[in-house]
Amino acid sequence: MTAKQPRLEIEYCTQCRWLLRAGWTAQELLTTFTAELGEVALVPGTGGVFDVRLGGETLWSRQEQGGFPELAALKQLVRDRIAPDRDLGHSDRHRKPSDG
Amino acid sequence: MTAKQPRLEIEYCTQCRWLLRAGWTAQELLTTFTAELGEVALVPGTGGVFDVRLGGETLWSRQEQGGFPELAALKQLVRDRIAPDRDLGHSDRHRKPSDG
Repeated sequence: MTAKQPRLEIEYCTQCRWLLRAGWTAQELLTTFTAELGEVALVPGTGGVFDVRLGGETLWSRQEQGGFPELAALKQLVRDRIAPDRDLGHSDRHRKPSDG
Repeated sequence: MTAKQPRLEIEYCTQCRWLLRAGWTAQELLTTFTAELGEVALVPGTGGVFDVRLGGETLWSRQEQGGFPELAALKQLVRDRIAPDRDLGHSDRHRKPSDG
């Protein structure tokens, strides 16, 4: 049984009880990128980990970046990689640097 | 980025809007088998699919079995394969054939 591509992976700390947060993030991403994501994997971890990886690339690492990813920003990171032409709606337009 | 083992996979029909059902099932299994499961992958599919696979084995196929898996029964199928000594609590004892 091989992973479907593109594969997004959310590794979360079970000791910190971040399953619901990881599950929510997974469902949000799958709602937005229904046709573009091959799968989202929830990976139990320990030691305060909350990492989001897409293919081989780490999009978010709690240890490196501190805290949790803001969902709109996370969707933009995913969008830029697997659906670059996708408009993410109001929050996306609001955040475009070109608006500044 | 390789899948973590043992890998459980839930393929759900996006057209049927079964993401929330799949997400709930994933979180239930990860709550019960926190230390035993390597990962649970949510896999978007089409055509009325709702399949649960563990390693190479199909534990539940909506097309073959009809309907959705009853969660207590699904946990027993998973338990028997990755945590055979685990007592699943009241519902498990209630359902043991030896009780009959």
